[in-house]
Amino acid sequence: MDLKEEIAQAVAQETGIETTKRDIEEVLSSLLVTSHFWEIVQLARQPFNVVVCTIKILGQKGWIEVGKDGAINLTPSGQKAIEGKGIKPKKVYRCRACMGRGVGLEGLEEVLKRFKEIAAHRPEAIIEYDQGYVTPETTVSRIALLADRGDLEGKKLLVLGDDDLVSLAAGLSGLPQEVVVLEIDERLLNFINEVAQRENMPVKAERYDFRQPLPSQYVGYFDTFITDPPETLEALEVCLSRGLASLKGEGCAGYFGLTHAESSLKKWNRLQQLLVGKFKVTITDIIEDFNQYVNWDYLLPSLKAKLPFVEVEPQMNWYHSAMYRIQVLERVEAVKNEPAACELYVDEEALIYGSQGS
Amino acid sequence: MDLKEEIAQAVAQETGIETTKRDIEEVLSSLLVTSHFWEIVQLARQPFNVVVCTIKILGQKGWIEVGKDGAINLTPSGQKAIEGKGIKPKKVYRCRACMGRGVGLEGLEEVLKRFKEIAAHRPEAIIEYDQGYVTPETTVSRIALLADRGDLEGKKLLVLGDDDLVSLAAGLSGLPQEVVVLEIDERLLNFINEVAQRENMPVKAERYDFRQPLPSQYVGYFDTFITDPPETLEALEVCLSRGLASLKGEGCAGYFGLTHAESSLKKWNRLQQLLVGKFKVTITDIIEDFNQYVNWDYLLPSLKAKLPFVEVEPQMNWYHSAMYRIQVLERVEAVKNEPAACELYVDEEALIYGSQGS
Repeated sequence: MDLKEEIAQAVAQETGIETTKRDIEEVLSSLLVTSHFWEIVQLARQPFNVVVCTIKILGQKGWIEVGKDGAINLTPSGQKAIEGKGIKPKKVYRCRACMGRGVGLEGLEEVLKRFKEIAAHRPEAIIEYDQGYVTPETTVSRIALLADRGDLEGKKLLVLGDDDLVSLAAGLSGLPQEVVVLEIDERLLNFINEVAQRENMPVKAERYDFRQPLPSQYVGYFDTFITDPPETLEALEVCLSRGLASLKGEGCAGYFGLTHAESSLKKWNRLQQLLVGKFKVTITDIIEDFNQYVNWDYLLPSLKAKLPFVEVEPQMNWYHSAMYRIQVLERVEAVKNEPAACELYVDEEALIYGSQGS
Repeated sequence: MDLKEEIAQAVAQETGIETTKRDIEEVLSSLLVTSHFWEIVQLARQPFNVVVCTIKILGQKGWIEVGKDGAINLTPSGQKAIEGKGIKPKKVYRCRACMGRGVGLEGLEEVLKRFKEIAAHRPEAIIEYDQGYVTPETTVSRIALLADRGDLEGKKLLVLGDDDLVSLAAGLSGLPQEVVVLEIDERLLNFINEVAQRENMPVKAERYDFRQPLPSQYVGYFDTFITDPPETLEALEVCLSRGLASLKGEGCAGYFGLTHAESSLKKWNRLQQLLVGKFKVTITDIIEDFNQYVNWDYLLPSLKAKLPFVEVEPQMNWYHSAMYRIQVLERVEAVKNEPAACELYVDEEALIYGSQGS
């Protein structure tokens, strides 16, 4: 059997995630340009658990060795094993000016500067709510993207969960008519409301758990929503249902992030079927690596995989997500506004390798 | 009734294209920043026929006037009519370095330079095959994108229709193992084969009409395909079926462009349903404005809409398309390799406003 096929089958069996030859190839290609685990996860664009498991298997075969510093290097027998298998060192052709996002921040320089000053005092990410916030450049790039697409200026914006402080960046831009944040974390609610009041922004934050129905005054109220949902399929469906229920109807838009680290392409496909089928929206943009997250303190302590190559501090912002934009074609019955008792954070692809719940 | 709603209904009735308030808003927003028809089409990201019809209706209401030079300007009564309707001048936040594509060409400078020299002698776009080629920067950005995603180096690439000369740019990069062009136009076949032979590239071009089944030796042969299909739903389905039939299977990728000028978001949704449902692929990227086309000579003569504001030479590369990347999850029965007698170029959203066929 083909080398990559053999590893793919072993990984699929151990992780429960469908894994292809191509997925293994992506991990091996990344391993040819870096020995740092977190960079491999970022470059390979594969579920965290697939990358961990692939490297474990390579170690069992004696094809890689892990140094005291956690560095992963191919052994001579590993190099021999992959020779002639068409595995090329991973190449990156990302625009350095926009970090691959495709948007420019001309005219938003002052917004970025003031946002950084404000965000310096933000509450830190905590594990209870699966938090992890994006870089200030990412937050302000979101403002640029929404504005470019006509979804911000003069519009009513719902921010569903806002550890990224999108609401404050939107407020600083002076573009939206109104911004409402629905958020579960009291620390963030207080922080956002205090800044909004001090800066005289049309922004308010209210407590909300998205497993509850959307407050009735917000059903059909907004032009645009943005959210960064947990990535179980159940959580994605509930969270995006809330966003869609909040919109006025046809022509309105929603934005959300989706990763490879916690969602296989199979899960991406299932979500896409839900979006374009049941929810009858059109996906207008999928911008890879748009959202780049600041490393969060609870990452290493929370991981179940106590492996020497995993337990190294990330040397860069390794956790990225693609930005989706969806646009509503028509209001559909399928978007229900009912309570949902769903598992938010844990499936076989979740990053926090089984340490919560299950 | 709301102003935008009223225009939307009139446009939908005349064009046969479902049109929303939001679509009209996009046209009006664009009209607030430019009086040049082709720039409005580009900025509004709407079907050509929707833009034409909206402007006609605005003219009938006396809200715009068209100058001798074809410039479209709001009249005082037009300005009054849209005042307070929440219509804001269109804003653009596009990265200037990559033109919004998100890819960088570092390391491909020489490929771009040589590609421009070679492409200077290319056959011109002709109407018989609905041709219209992209800028050299677009072609080389495609090479960067394919290489970044691991779909080019050491891989077998099918280029299905190649007036953009992607095959030659791929050859110049030295990355692919093999490139096959299937193309109907003898002029392009000869040009590509001559250059490939002279430059000693692993590139060959063969004559093929995509309404015919894919030649059997190419079924399941390639790692990657790229195509720029005509945009009737039928043509999209047939063309993408050929591409998918050419791939080895799971993990392989396809690339194609899709416009707003010839495809409403409703058509985008139908295509997306086909892709993620029947074809069981995952859409991994949709990069807006990635493909930027050089204006083609037959544009104005071919248009049925003989309107003074339309019959002006475009002052910029107004025709753009979004780049889709799809990845195969599994081989599916739904991808048939049978002859198709389909209408390639004409539907109610096609650019060539009924002047061919129907």
